[in-house]
Amino acid sequence: MRAEIVSVGTEILFGEIVDTNAAFVAGHLPEYGIDLLYASQVGDNPARMREVIGRAWGRSDITFITGGLGPTEDDITRETVGEVLGETLAVDPEQEAHLRARWMNRPGQAAMPERNLKQAMLIPSARAIPNPRGTAPGWWVERDGKVIVVMPGPPAEMTRMWEHEVAPELERRSDSILVARTLKTTGLGESVVDEMLSPLLKSTNPSIGIYHRADGVHARIAAKAATREEAWTLIRPMEERARAILGPNVWGVDEQSIQAAVGEMLREQGLTLALMESATGGAIASAITDVDGASDYFHGSLVTYATEAKIIQGVPAEIPAMHGVISRETAEAMAKATREKLRADLGLGITGIAGGNELEGQPPGTMHIALYDGERMEYSLSRYYQGREAAKRRAVLQALTLLRNYLMARAGAKLE
Amino acid sequence: MRAEIVSVGTEILFGEIVDTNAAFVAGHLPEYGIDLLYASQVGDNPARMREVIGRAWGRSDITFITGGLGPTEDDITRETVGEVLGETLAVDPEQEAHLRARWMNRPGQAAMPERNLKQAMLIPSARAIPNPRGTAPGWWVERDGKVIVVMPGPPAEMTRMWEHEVAPELERRSDSILVARTLKTTGLGESVVDEMLSPLLKSTNPSIGIYHRADGVHARIAAKAATREEAWTLIRPMEERARAILGPNVWGVDEQSIQAAVGEMLREQGLTLALMESATGGAIASAITDVDGASDYFHGSLVTYATEAKIIQGVPAEIPAMHGVISRETAEAMAKATREKLRADLGLGITGIAGGNELEGQPPGTMHIALYDGERMEYSLSRYYQGREAAKRRAVLQALTLLRNYLMARAGAKLE
Repeated sequence: MRAEIVSVGTEILFGEIVDTNAAFVAGHLPEYGIDLLYASQVGDNPARMREVIGRAWGRSDITFITGGLGPTEDDITRETVGEVLGETLAVDPEQEAHLRARWMNRPGQAAMPERNLKQAMLIPSARAIPNPRGTAPGWWVERDGKVIVVMPGPPAEMTRMWEHEVAPELERRSDSILVARTLKTTGLGESVVDEMLSPLLKSTNPSIGIYHRADGVHARIAAKAATREEAWTLIRPMEERARAILGPNVWGVDEQSIQAAVGEMLREQGLTLALMESATGGAIASAITDVDGASDYFHGSLVTYATEAKIIQGVPAEIPAMHGVISRETAEAMAKATREKLRADLGLGITGIAGGNELEGQPPGTMHIALYDGERMEYSLSRYYQGREAAKRRAVLQALTLLRNYLMARAGAKLE
Repeated sequence: MRAEIVSVGTEILFGEIVDTNAAFVAGHLPEYGIDLLYASQVGDNPARMREVIGRAWGRSDITFITGGLGPTEDDITRETVGEVLGETLAVDPEQEAHLRARWMNRPGQAAMPERNLKQAMLIPSARAIPNPRGTAPGWWVERDGKVIVVMPGPPAEMTRMWEHEVAPELERRSDSILVARTLKTTGLGESVVDEMLSPLLKSTNPSIGIYHRADGVHARIAAKAATREEAWTLIRPMEERARAILGPNVWGVDEQSIQAAVGEMLREQGLTLALMESATGGAIASAITDVDGASDYFHGSLVTYATEAKIIQGVPAEIPAMHGVISRETAEAMAKATREKLRADLGLGITGIAGGNELEGQPPGTMHIALYDGERMEYSLSRYYQGREAAKRRAVLQALTLLRNYLMARAGAKLE
């Protein structure tokens, strides 16, 4: 099935918003065996919208349009689709009742402006798609064996409509579903993973692909089948073989973040964690607390940006004085100090230089990371610089990887 | 001048990358008086690329193409532009020498694969645009009064080429330059700003627009003139009038972040800052330390996620016990404790609930923020919930706004 995406909105062509809707829809279409051939953006201009939507209707089996469903005169997606199909818009009584009821429920709201009534309009070939997050329903248009799906522009409304209404309908109509399972690895280069998995790479369904990503190398197993269940039946044995080959290098699957994976292991092993952060400035703590329920295992982070703050929190003054603030020794002292101060099982310390000029002879992007469990000290050095924010992000990832590797090794040692 | 953007790359149509290049170019075109009428994405497919680029050449005065300049067989942007214009590609000796020299300079690198030579090719109507960040030069194509600008897909290469090569050329050719100055405000609603600035709103050059953004309401003053200098001459008096009307509600200009504005005020007033963060989990500290030179005024943040950690850091145990952990009283005790503990002039405490279920009868998104200077206590309550990460972002903004308002008032009091 040949698909096309049209994003409507002058604000996209002014560069005021990035068209994330198109990327969202594009990313999901392969699941339903739908090939996306074109995507385009067009402003709220009648002639150009007619041109772009008309061309899409002519050449594509299914067109996804987002935006232009608001109540103002500028919002003309409904009118344009009607024109392209040569059909007349009329207020749908059911949609009108629904729209008026929504307005009644707004506290302290005056009567609905009559121009908003256009949001209750349909053409004969369209049925309304519910939109509980906004006033504008979508349109599912179907004629001559072709489909146009119209969705609202605000991403929260669009993604909700996609997940609850559009995706299930695409799945019902699709005779081939694509399901994928991503195994996320750490500690291995792309070519190494490629070589390790080479016995599996010849398989075409399920297929396996290797991708280098910001959080490590991903192995993505994808299967096509008539149903989701059949696809999973194809994926599972391949996943087991890949896991057997990659072993403990796999730290997570699919959308899981490394902080969620670390959190799960801390909870399973009944361990608590405290940090002392300098150059990352609280970014590791912020990542860890992005995970629901982090309070079960996370005690806190002492963001000791100033050297004096480190000393106040228990780093012996002579260590930075002797070895420098940006040193392995200071990172280790920070790990020990926060573990003791915040009474946690594990203490992690990180010191370095995120940006600006060289400090103590070390270039920006240098990060010393230490992890202490009361007996053993683990250490990791990161050197990466593509600007201050990127250096922080990389250091967060490397600190979480150090934690993850420690927890994996500890779980393995316990099993033996 | 009618412009069009074409982004080339199958990975965009798979939703694997978001087309930020198009948004970048789109956002800059108004500066040169160029109207963007269409933008589209197309995969690395010869027929469809011919179709899309051919249509752009036919209907637009200037077309910006990004992507498809790599050395592999998939990369066919050069070939397609040649076909559309009916011109033959040939290796340019100067580009070839340049390309081979680049390869020689790579340490330990084998000879350049011959297929890479295509990156040195030109057509008669094209001149090469230098690309110091990559091996592929861009193309500036000009014929029949029309222009095609071809730039590489990697954003770091594209934006560098834009700023150093493409934008200056557009500026030379443009007889009208658009310059804008954005005043960022806080504490006022969109309609209030609109009303306050109503005496200025009738002006058309410079014009002034009011926009509601994540970090407050922005007033954007834009002027068109033959040169950048003339445009600034139009903007300056309007900026002065707008600043006089908005007064201390203006916290920054253009791309400045609120953490940079706060940092500047702390430095000017010779004050130091310490935080104690609970629900924001270090996110305020991370924002503050995204600013170069933050160590001049930022002592650190005690991220006391666990209640016990708060007490260890000096919050009297009876305060959370009596008033609840998520309370104004605990936030105030946190502000006092961190100010004392980290020996700073200002202490800011924040406690709340970022996500998950209701806690202590308070819904997710509730944040109590307190700021203490040793004498006065400032307090702010934030209630905003659109998921955990959005609640954290909003709380960071509100805490920085509290700080900013305090520092503005303090500077004002000193002046009097």
